[in-house]
Amino acid sequence: FEVSTIKFLFKEIFKASLNLQNNHQKKEMLVSRKMQPQNTIVDINGEMIGDGSQRFIMGPCAVESYDQVKSVALAMKKQGLTLLRGGAFKPRTSPYDFQGLGERGLQILRKVGDEVGMSVISEIVSSNDVEMALPYVDVIQIGARNMQNFELLKTVGKVDKPVLLKRGLSATIEEFINAAEYIMANGNNQIILCERGIRTYEKATRNTLDISAVPILKKETHLPVIVDVTHSTGRKDLLLPTAKAALAIGADAVMAEVHPDPAVALSDSAQQMNIAEFNEFIEELKVLQKKLALV
Amino acid sequence: FEVSTIKFLFKEIFKASLNLQNNHQKKEMLVSRKMQPQNTIVDINGEMIGDGSQRFIMGPCAVESYDQVKSVALAMKKQGLTLLRGGAFKPRTSPYDFQGLGERGLQILRKVGDEVGMSVISEIVSSNDVEMALPYVDVIQIGARNMQNFELLKTVGKVDKPVLLKRGLSATIEEFINAAEYIMANGNNQIILCERGIRTYEKATRNTLDISAVPILKKETHLPVIVDVTHSTGRKDLLLPTAKAALAIGADAVMAEVHPDPAVALSDSAQQMNIAEFNEFIEELKVLQKKLALV
Amino acid sequence: FEVSTIKFLFKEIFKASLNLQNNHQKKEMLVSRKMQPQNTIVDINGEMIGDGSQRFIMGPCAVESYDQVKSVALAMKKQGLTLLRGGAFKPRTSPYDFQGLGERGLQILRKVGDEVGMSVISEIVSSNDVEMALPYVDVIQIGARNMQNFELLKTVGKVDKPVLLKRGLSATIEEFINAAEYIMANGNNQIILCERGIRTYEKATRNTLDISAVPILKKETHLPVIVDVTHSTGRKDLLLPTAKAALAIGADAVMAEVHPDPAVALSDSAQQMNIAEFNEFIEELKVLQKKLALV
Amino acid sequence: FEVSTIKFLFKEIFKASLNLQNNHQKKEMLVSRKMQPQNTIVDINGEMIGDGSQRFIMGPCAVESYDQVKSVALAMKKQGLTLLRGGAFKPRTSPYDFQGLGERGLQILRKVGDEVGMSVISEIVSSNDVEMALPYVDVIQIGARNMQNFELLKTVGKVDKPVLLKRGLSATIEEFINAAEYIMANGNNQIILCERGIRTYEKATRNTLDISAVPILKKETHLPVIVDVTHSTGRKDLLLPTAKAALAIGADAVMAEVHPDPAVALSDSAQQMNIAEFNEFIEELKVLQKKLALV
Repeated sequence: FEVSTIKFLFKEIFKASLNLQNNHQKKEMLVSRKMQPQNTIVDINGEMIGDGSQRFIMGPCAVESYDQVKSVALAMKKQGLTLLRGGAFKPRTSPYDFQGLGERGLQILRKVGDEVGMSVISEIVSSNDVEMALPYVDVIQIGARNMQNFELLKTVGKVDKPVLLKRGLSATIEEFINAAEYIMANGNNQIILCERGIRTYEKATRNTLDISAVPILKKETHLPVIVDVTHSTGRKDLLLPTAKAALAIGADAVMAEVHPDPAVALSDSAQQMNIAEFNEFIEELKVLQKKLALV
Repeated sequence: FEVSTIKFLFKEIFKASLNLQNNHQKKEMLVSRKMQPQNTIVDINGEMIGDGSQRFIMGPCAVESYDQVKSVALAMKKQGLTLLRGGAFKPRTSPYDFQGLGERGLQILRKVGDEVGMSVISEIVSSNDVEMALPYVDVIQIGARNMQNFELLKTVGKVDKPVLLKRGLSATIEEFINAAEYIMANGNNQIILCERGIRTYEKATRNTLDISAVPILKKETHLPVIVDVTHSTGRKDLLLPTAKAALAIGADAVMAEVHPDPAVALSDSAQQMNIAEFNEFIEELKVLQKKLALV
Repeated sequence: FEVSTIKFLFKEIFKASLNLQNNHQKKEMLVSRKMQPQNTIVDINGEMIGDGSQRFIMGPCAVESYDQVKSVALAMKKQGLTLLRGGAFKPRTSPYDFQGLGERGLQILRKVGDEVGMSVISEIVSSNDVEMALPYVDVIQIGARNMQNFELLKTVGKVDKPVLLKRGLSATIEEFINAAEYIMANGNNQIILCERGIRTYEKATRNTLDISAVPILKKETHLPVIVDVTHSTGRKDLLLPTAKAALAIGADAVMAEVHPDPAVALSDSAQQMNIAEFNEFIEELKVLQKKLALV
Repeated sequence: FEVSTIKFLFKEIFKASLNLQNNHQKKEMLVSRKMQPQNTIVDINGEMIGDGSQRFIMGPCAVESYDQVKSVALAMKKQGLTLLRGGAFKPRTSPYDFQGLGERGLQILRKVGDEVGMSVISEIVSSNDVEMALPYVDVIQIGARNMQNFELLKTVGKVDKPVLLKRGLSATIEEFINAAEYIMANGNNQIILCERGIRTYEKATRNTLDISAVPILKKETHLPVIVDVTHSTGRKDLLLPTAKAALAIGADAVMAEVHPDPAVALSDSAQQMNIAEFNEFIEELKVLQKKLALV
């Protein structure tokens, strides 16, 4: 062997021991499947996420009014759904776009949730709002743009409410898992991971649904994994097929947006289903669920 | 109205008329669903692709020997499969990597195909090889790296054999459809489109399976659409879940790689199933197919 | 004309009028060059950014100790530089990585800045820390992961200190400009935009330096634009060539990381220059600046 | 140590020896700087590429007529340029777009080249056309879509003409270098590498100019590296600034498109300069070259 070869070999052995340590660290992550082999099941007022059943989380993109939310909630209730999601704080690209109703929006969600008997899921964008939001929401959503807002992650890691964590716009799966670790390292293990599409060169869809993230996340972590088909595709005609793929690949829930009158929605009007489309969507997926459940 | 506004409006009207023409052109593409509302069904010696049933196309990454191909083919036959795929011409990043057995590889495929009673699918990388390959193959595959090798597309457009066209490494869906149009415009309408993952920033998988490409391609064109789960993921542990997603979303076939002894494979050793894994893979998917077929 | 053509034309005219409105909105953005034709010049204690001269912003990735910062500051001073940048709050992928010294880090930066006569630039990651940080820093940096942390943008929009806003990991230029608009819409027009590489499939560099973002941002906005060559490339051997490209294309400043002993740095050890490399870097760039300034 | 640790360590040592072999292979690539420390200089009828001077390669996107090419060539000649590039075979996304004049286009280029005294560079898209093209062209261009058309690479590797190899639409730098190796392994070492932008999520430019590819390619290989600013940006307003960056970072030539009347061009009309713009472009870059050359 030449001297340079020997040097190189030692460098590689050094690298290898570093990798060994990294792997140990990975193994020691609280969210890791190696740390906890059995699934974490998140209990949202009795509706379980991660127990093998597959749920639906639906609602309008943004809370606009009591009537709007109520009509969606009633339609959901008729279909037997109980997980109502709506945005009160909307992170928008432009400061001049509708930014959501804020606390007023949360109040509407809570009121409707109580009247109709549904659990409320809503995004919080600032650690200062977490305390305020607790009485209104049953699950705190952390949006894609805040997946690495570590201050916010730490704050929701300290509360006693489930957290629905969305994957960042172009976060790697490793970064996504580490973001969840920020929450769990602060004490909160009620975490739901949400694949919502990643940013790629392809423009036929709003984002590219990374469907293989579902089995990877379920293998690497013990957390439930859901799929947001609305933001993944940004196209109403793709909601049903991608939801079918999500169910078949083992997602713990499918999330999508419904609006009583999408044409006048204050945000994402092109990609929300109306009530009739929602009913058709749920009914087709129930048929699929029934088939998949057969022995 | 200001003068600039009027100017702008006229510019937009001009753009609009351009778009109108583009849309006409799109409508007039031979592969377009608007041009032919009913599905194209590709008949491979009696095995139909695109008729609503969902097929399996399997085989080794590269043809290495008669014994290797034969043992895969026999395993496939036992499972009732008839579509054998293997690489004789291997486009490899480095000129020093194994480039395939060439015509000798095609001969092996044909011999095994005839002995076992299977159809042969193999990639051709040069328009000069198309004529030579015709007696050996039942389907000509065009690989991802050649999706915009327009000379090759034109050549296979003139032969009377089905073409399996893979999406380019980072081709848009629009470019993919146009590549198929090159084939059909030259007279060959027996085209199978194959989603095989796209290049993104995510490195947990070899490529990112763009599962929503399946419903988009089926909506935009009348051609059958299949999913190559091996190249999409590059990971054996993801073949089964992504194949399930592909079946659920309506792919006309699933393609994957099998090798009698992946550890010594001359290419892609990490991502090929062995025979036992292949059997398990097919059996699980058959169960899913049965469930999906129930009324 | 067919009826469908007429319908299409009207739809396009409608779209055109929408575009017209969008364009108006764009024109009316406060950061837009259309709104303010002359360059915004940010004055950092007498050192101007955006006046046509080209500055250097340097310092360690993370503040680790008084001695570490002092030795970098003294080296910078010798080269005539006055803009000292160091991280006290470090947003890290893993919760178990070094998170920075926090307020103690800011104190060190301020103390060194005052002793050596330099201005201090440091990242703030939470709107709750902005008030606390004001006495310590001369420029507030908003990091890539917080580019769409709109709460933080609004908060720094209300203070009377320049803001150095880094482009998000995979933010579009349009999103980047809108993020700056969040700051300016809240009253603060002292904004410096920083291109720092975008996330792509290419792994030869940590990120891909999007050098054409510089002329685009200078055309679309009136704000100064700088280039962070360290995070764009993640490679010490590329700092000098990319810095030359940045100066030639008209960046208002070049930002890079220096550490007295990179091998033991608590973060980004591979990509920081040591003092000798820093001196060579600055001297080569000064030669280039001299050449570019010649008539 | 646990057994698993020992196993892991041995696995890593095994990996390390594999890496060692890979590195050897890399070192042994013919295009590698390790194999040949001094620069390859490509001589195009006396105009050197790679000798430290920085050249301009200009011409229309597509050859449309003798008059069109002649007027561009005369304008170039006036500026002292001798490297005329024009497309006779145009790989186009749609089969219905203008595909170039073919051999007739090469004849026009040759005729004009001979009359005006210029060297001719033109893309060849099929290995069958290489022989035919040799009398007409001084440099064979391999386009982005054919960077991994290995049959074509092997063919041009066997001829005695310089090859201008463009980076693939989303090729990694490693794949790009390996594509050049295909040419050199077949005997032709007169290779010019061309960065032309890569495909990313950003849509403000047609592609994203990966400017750091220039120093990386020059470090890894001994081949000259040029930058095509037209296809990198797809915007006329970015040609000059990106060309400046290319010169500053050490590119051996800048390539751009000129058309006597871009508005009526049969391809890429939006991004080609007219003659007046071309003159301004060259004159500004000559000023920069003069400055950069000063001691």
